[in-house]
Parts: sequence; C-alpha cells; structure tokens
Amino acid sequence: MNGQTFELLILGSGAASPTAKRNPSAQLLNIVERYFLIDCGEATQMQLRRYKAKMQKINHIFITHMHGDHFYGLPGLLSTMQLLGRKNPLHIFGPKELRPVIEVILEASESRLNYELVWHYTHDNGLNLLFEDDKVKVSSFPLRHRIYCTGFLFQEKPLPRKINMDKLKKFKVSAAEIPKLKKGLDAHNDLGQIVKNNKLTTDPATPRSYAYCSDTISDRGVVPYIENVNLLYHEATFLSDNTKRAKQTFHSTAKQAASIAKRANVQKLIIGHFSSRYDSTVRFLSEARSSFRNTEIAEEGLTFKI
Amino acid sequence: MNGQTFELLILGSGAASPTAKRNPSAQLLNIVERYFLIDCGEATQMQLRRYKAKMQKINHIFITHMHGDHFYGLPGLLSTMQLLGRKNPLHIFGPKELRPVIEVILEASESRLNYELVWHYTHDNGLNLLFEDDKVKVSSFPLRHRIYCTGFLFQEKPLPRKINMDKLKKFKVSAAEIPKLKKGLDAHNDLGQIVKNNKLTTDPATPRSYAYCSDTISDRGVVPYIENVNLLYHEATFLSDNTKRAKQTFHSTAKQAASIAKRANVQKLIIGHFSSRYDSTVRFLSEARSSFRNTEIAEEGLTFKI
Repeated sequence: MNGQTFELLILGSGAASPTAKRNPSAQLLNIVERYFLIDCGEATQMQLRRYKAKMQKINHIFITHMHGDHFYGLPGLLSTMQLLGRKNPLHIFGPKELRPVIEVILEASESRLNYELVWHYTHDNGLNLLFEDDKVKVSSFPLRHRIYCTGFLFQEKPLPRKINMDKLKKFKVSAAEIPKLKKGLDAHNDLGQIVKNNKLTTDPATPRSYAYCSDTISDRGVVPYIENVNLLYHEATFLSDNTKRAKQTFHSTAKQAASIAKRANVQKLIIGHFSSRYDSTVRFLSEARSSFRNTEIAEEGLTFKI
Repeated sequence: MNGQTFELLILGSGAASPTAKRNPSAQLLNIVERYFLIDCGEATQMQLRRYKAKMQKINHIFITHMHGDHFYGLPGLLSTMQLLGRKNPLHIFGPKELRPVIEVILEASESRLNYELVWHYTHDNGLNLLFEDDKVKVSSFPLRHRIYCTGFLFQEKPLPRKINMDKLKKFKVSAAEIPKLKKGLDAHNDLGQIVKNNKLTTDPATPRSYAYCSDTISDRGVVPYIENVNLLYHEATFLSDNTKRAKQTFHSTAKQAASIAKRANVQKLIIGHFSSRYDSTVRFLSEARSSFRNTEIAEEGLTFKI
C-alpha cells in the first residue's frame, strides 16, 4: 500500500433484472482523485447520491457493452450533471453504438448540455489503451458475451524511486540529482564520481491495478489481460447448479469466476451481477471461496481499498 | 365510496434532478384492477419492486412529456417485463416523439420484446379520449410547459342504478326487468303497468375521477378539464419565494397548485415534483394548505384511496 488513494465503491451489482435490494451494474473507482465510473445501469445517479459520491468529479465513464443494465442510467446522469451546472468535458469510453443512442435520447428530451461529451470507442482487438496521464492508465480488453463487450484494466503508473536523504549526504550527492535518481538513473556526486542509483534509493511501492470483467462467459482467454492484478471484479450471474444456463447466456458461475481469479493469480476477487433468481449471496460466496479463498461479494455501498 | 378499487400509489415525486430521498415522477393508479402507470422516471421499475406492485398487471402506460425525468425509466421497465416472460400487449400513450426514442434504445440494447407495444399518441387539442372500457375512461388534456406536455384524466364510468328488491316485490315487477332498471329505464310490472324507475331504484355511487397535472406553469386554462375531480395531483416544483423562477421554467409553486385546486373545486389535492433545492416538504404543505386545506404531499410509497 502506498499513500495514494485507490478505492472502489460498488454502486450496483445486480444482473439484467434489478430487484428492490440490488441495482444494476455500476462502480466508482477513485485512483489518486481520478474518479472513473464503470458501467452506468439505471439509477446509478441515485446510487451516487445515496453514497455521497462526488458526481461532478467524474470525468471519465467506461461502458462495457450495450445491454441496458449497463448503460440505461447514463442519460439521467448526464442530464443531472447539466442541471447541476457542469462545465468540464466528460469523456465516455464504450462501444461505438453508444453515442448515437445517447444523442437521440438527449435530443428527444431537449437536454442540451453546456459541457462537452468526448467520445472514445473501445475495440475488441487485444489490449487497447484508452486513457493515460501521469498517474494512471486505463485499457480495455475483449470479453466474450452475447454481444460485443469489453472489460477494463485500471493501472497505477510506476511510482518514482524513494530517495534516501542520509545516503545522499553520505555519498556527497546534491539535491539537484534527485530528479534523475527518482527515474532510476545513476547520479554524479560533488567529487564528479558516479554513484549507483541503488545506493541512494529504495524501491517504491508496487503499482496497483484493478480489472473489471462483466459480462462474460467463463473464458481463459481473458487471463493474460488481468494477470496479477490486485483486485479483480468478475461477474458471477449464476451458481454451479446453472452452469449450462450460464454457458447458454454467455455468463459465468461463481465457481468459474473463482477459477479465472486463481488462474490469473490475482490478489483478491469480488463477484457480482447476481441473477435475480437468487435471494441470497451466501452460496455465491461459499462456492467461489471453495476455489479461491480471497473472494468477497460486491455488495452495494461497500468500498474496497487496495 | 363504492366497493370498487380506486387507489393511487406514489412511486416518485421528485423533479428533474433526483435526490437520494426522492425519485423522479411515476405513479401507479389502480381502478377496478386496471393498473395504469403514469409517467415513468428513472428507477420506476425499482420503485415498483420496492412497493411490491404488480408490474406485469400494468397494461397501460401514460407519459406526459419528453423530459427525461418522466420517461427515462421506460426502457428498463420494458426490458424487465420481457425478462419476466411478458406476453400481453402493452399500450403506451404519450407524445409521438416517444416511440422512435424507445425503439432506438431497445434496438441498440438488443432487447427484442416478445410482447407487442401498442403506441397511442396524445395531442394537445382539448380533451382527447385515449382509452375506454366498460368501467373506466382515460383522456389527455393540454398542459403549458416548456415543451409539449399533457395531463391525464382518469374517470370511472357511471355505475348501474341500485335495485331495491323490496320495491320490485311491492310493485309486482319481475327480475327480468332489472337490466332496464339498472340503465335508468322504467319497467313494466306483471299487470302490464308502467312503473317509474325512481320508485324501484336508488342512485349509485357517484363515479370517481383522478387528474394528473405535471409539468405545468400555473394555468387557469386547465380548470375545465379537472373540475370537480375527487383527487388532483398538481406539480409544485417551487415555493412562493421562487414564483418568478417557476414562471420562467414553466413550473408551479405550491400556492399556485392550491389555487388551481380551489378554482377547480376538487375534493383533495396532492402535490409533488419538488425541486431538489428544498430539503423538506413542510413548507410546501403549509403554503398549499393556506389556500386549499385538503392538500397532502405525494410522498413516495403513500397510497391515496378515493
């Protein structure tokens, strides 16, 4: 763990048909005060309010695919951002089919936006870098679902090496050398000698990562994209008693999600997108944990910190 | 009050920007087991679940206008009805602009419906009969808002006259005459004489009615359409301290809603569509009641019986 924020708030973890207890898919990821909204099922704006999330700080929205339980909340959220006086551009990443639909809806409801929507289209040809700044990068990767669908990988960028000031003094290296040292380069000292970087610095915290896989059939092809992430969200629409149904509908069971987590050697797994046919998540948890111990339920309102 | 059901369930009573406590506009009216959904703001399907309403019994949906807080919940509701196996046709009444929008959304999200959507368009030229069966009729009427908008009037049909069996015996009128008597016609008795209807029957309960007015500027032009209804819902987006703002945005204040109720001589008024700028409804109620005593707040989850 390093000092920078990296936390995930679950806004919805139900499947296509929401229940009174469970909203459709939506999550809010905060990496170093960048707020990424991941999927935007119906009533996501209400969920943001309920959990006192900072709606207007969201500048990037990522939509996996065009099933309604993953984007029907978008028009309402965009309208509300407008009503609340938003001026900052909003970047939306998703299938190219999303833009015309949102535009038709906004136009029909006469919701003229005073802020810019910047559209970015995902594709399903391998890992696809969508966003990058000095701290974070976000990529999409293909998932196998009934229709075109991608997952998203959120990665913290490598942190600068940690400077040991005592060692700088000892080796007579001036502060002017610090930028080079942070990057991992060697330094010159006051005597004109080269001092190896590893004598003056220590390793920074390991960059953290989060992968989001919803909706998808159980597919080992996803493993290379999500390998070794700190946190994996993988859909678990069904229990093993419905493995056949899961395959037919291009969804996964809790056991399959756990198996992917294990194979990808992730640190922690959270599961969600539960079918409304199940009243409780107890069996989801026990089924997944029997294959992958460090599993949690993506309960609405929970925050997962990395 | 007669023995037939006539009750209104409030599903949402917020204005354009929903809050954690208040959903956008939606109501479910049950008249003699006909379930009419009136407006369908975002998360209406969740509200139906929350209040254990019978979603699949809804066969008629009425949409006032194309602002998002009145129809953004429709695509999700239609998809869920499909997922739950609906077969019965669903009638949707609203502006003609609604159909292409809903069709684009359903098509984009690959929500093929196995039941028929039957579209009926409202118009703003006076009272417009939209639906009629043996018990109920529903009409739209024009409202004055920023965009095209109609209200809806739900009316129970006149009930048959009540037969007094003792009087039938006394005047020697046979049971075969009852159908005529129920309609208000006179009867022949066993002696071939005419017996006046009013000697054999009593008045039935007065047919009940409900009018829905959202969204609208304060407009006396609406009075002829809603005169003498048992229950009036009138929007009250603002308090009187924002009368100017109400006018600018083509909305009403609580005082104005009460004034319309009084002028239209309605029995009871409920107000809603409260702007999210107000934390509480206490002042709405006191402001309205100072002009029209029999006012209530359209709180979510409340049922109003007529």
